[in-house]
Amino acid sequence: MITAKARAVDGPDQPFRTTEIKRRDLDSHDVLIEIKYAGICHSDIHTAHGEWGPVNYPLVPGHEIAGIVTEVGPEVTKYKVGDRVGVGCMVDSCGECENCRKGDEQYCLNGNIPTYAGVDKYGEPTQGGYSTHIVVTEGFVVRIPDSISLDAAAPLLCAGITTYSPLNHWEAGPDKRVAVVGLGGLGHMAVKIAHAMGAEVTVLSQTLKKKEDGLHFGAESYFATNNPETFEKLAGSFDLIINTVSAQIDIDAYLSLLALDGTLVNVGAPGEPLSLNVMSLIGHRRSFAGSTIGGIRETQEMLDFCAEHNIVPKIEIISADEIDEAYKRVLASDVKYRFVIDISTM
Amino acid sequence: MITAKARAVDGPDQPFRTTEIKRRDLDSHDVLIEIKYAGICHSDIHTAHGEWGPVNYPLVPGHEIAGIVTEVGPEVTKYKVGDRVGVGCMVDSCGECENCRKGDEQYCLNGNIPTYAGVDKYGEPTQGGYSTHIVVTEGFVVRIPDSISLDAAAPLLCAGITTYSPLNHWEAGPDKRVAVVGLGGLGHMAVKIAHAMGAEVTVLSQTLKKKEDGLHFGAESYFATNNPETFEKLAGSFDLIINTVSAQIDIDAYLSLLALDGTLVNVGAPGEPLSLNVMSLIGHRRSFAGSTIGGIRETQEMLDFCAEHNIVPKIEIISADEIDEAYKRVLASDVKYRFVIDISTM
Repeated sequence: MITAKARAVDGPDQPFRTTEIKRRDLDSHDVLIEIKYAGICHSDIHTAHGEWGPVNYPLVPGHEIAGIVTEVGPEVTKYKVGDRVGVGCMVDSCGECENCRKGDEQYCLNGNIPTYAGVDKYGEPTQGGYSTHIVVTEGFVVRIPDSISLDAAAPLLCAGITTYSPLNHWEAGPDKRVAVVGLGGLGHMAVKIAHAMGAEVTVLSQTLKKKEDGLHFGAESYFATNNPETFEKLAGSFDLIINTVSAQIDIDAYLSLLALDGTLVNVGAPGEPLSLNVMSLIGHRRSFAGSTIGGIRETQEMLDFCAEHNIVPKIEIISADEIDEAYKRVLASDVKYRFVIDISTM
Repeated sequence: MITAKARAVDGPDQPFRTTEIKRRDLDSHDVLIEIKYAGICHSDIHTAHGEWGPVNYPLVPGHEIAGIVTEVGPEVTKYKVGDRVGVGCMVDSCGECENCRKGDEQYCLNGNIPTYAGVDKYGEPTQGGYSTHIVVTEGFVVRIPDSISLDAAAPLLCAGITTYSPLNHWEAGPDKRVAVVGLGGLGHMAVKIAHAMGAEVTVLSQTLKKKEDGLHFGAESYFATNNPETFEKLAGSFDLIINTVSAQIDIDAYLSLLALDGTLVNVGAPGEPLSLNVMSLIGHRRSFAGSTIGGIRETQEMLDFCAEHNIVPKIEIISADEIDEAYKRVLASDVKYRFVIDISTM
């Protein structure tokens, strides 16, 4: 067994504390990664606070992981010691269902194994990236291109792929009018990626506070959704809307912004059911869809795409002692645009 | 002006009465049609009863119209006297917006002109097919193939195209698993058309009462939705679900029946908003969509497809005096599967 230093929480209202966790000895296809950076995702907070169902505490969150390979199992072929690698939201899947065979492991019919708060195939609870080391089967490890620094790479493993995948699936590109709802960790990646894909990008944010940033990230225009005129002015304007906001929104109002055959994709889910008027869909053959992260092959494709287009998230590096404070600031929307923990401070 | 005999209602609770209505003199591109048969669509009932908003009574419903051309305007090129023709749910549109230019007149951005309960471009209220004659611009008239009898053709103009269009748009065909919710006027057409397209068709109906009919129409299997086991057994089974039921249904339960990338399309809208859990979409990248009728070119394509595949609705012919009774029977789901008025009894 390998001992790793980590930060864990013991309950919904508890602060993070220093701890040691065990990582399994390397199986034949496993890779040992020395983690250098871990991003803080809103999901970490929901899970740590027990908002997404019961948690088997203590919990070590973190599924935006960037590091260096320090050891490989005897049958590993994809990686060698010294490789720069990343791990995202899942660390395994059945590999046998029709979705896994298509490379859509995120939709594994038998349930993929989440990077933390899950149970691995050895029956052990999974623990995430707020730690110095992790052991992952090579099939769920991706390569970080040399041109992307490890700190900036970390948030790509969740915020990057969560937005790249629907933009890719619904074919954002030239002649496509894409709106991004919310300019947070996911939203700012969606803007950069959609812009790099060649789409015409609009940000829909509650206020105009971050307008300058949005335009800098690649948006052509930026509208405040707290202004009712926005919805009149933009009616029927978009082919694709990526909604990065998990809070309850007036979904009919956002659907009204879609043109014929347009799709609104939610990448997050509010805790409560939404109210939806079917006429919002019928009148223009619109679709309301959902998407979660991406497959492993697609995650590698996203990293390569980001390298090719010089796309990195805008991050704020924090030390391991600052996680609690960072959580508070995320909840107050006081982050531009992703916190990344420097694991050397662990 | 041309005088036509018709049946009209004078208010939400009124019976149909015999009347005479005026049809405009033929404009250069107009066609005068002697109506032979008119289908009774559930929309007729909703509109006659004032359930879809205020109605300018007296109202002559009917948008499933089949008849013979008896006169043409001087610049008409598509039709000549004696041609067998049909008219569906719309009689005009702007012709200039991007949707009209693509042939999607049903999604006209300036609002198409419905066959009844609308106002035409001359400022006159439109009146529908429960009448002996109608004048329609040739661009909104379709040709009924010789092999389809006029009585059976009538319901194709709404029930047929309303189901053909989403099946066509979402590519029902070989290797596609299609479910049809509800086996009424629309549902039975959806089964026949999807089967002819080569899809594997399942009917989801409240009970098994119409199972024999459903299998006869081309379904491979038939399940009762009042049995909760149906939803367990069929979880993740379909690529496309066409929901022909306008009543409130548990949309999350039906979404759970979709496989990865599956789409549930509503072709009718309940009066009240639906409750939808976004997780029903996210977990398998599912879509919830809406669709209404089809464009004129697509309506002609549907008629030709039905002729090629020997598809006709199952109808019950009634006289004009039986409309009130037919409405009651539609509301009691006591129709197999479409009432068609013999206009010679007008």
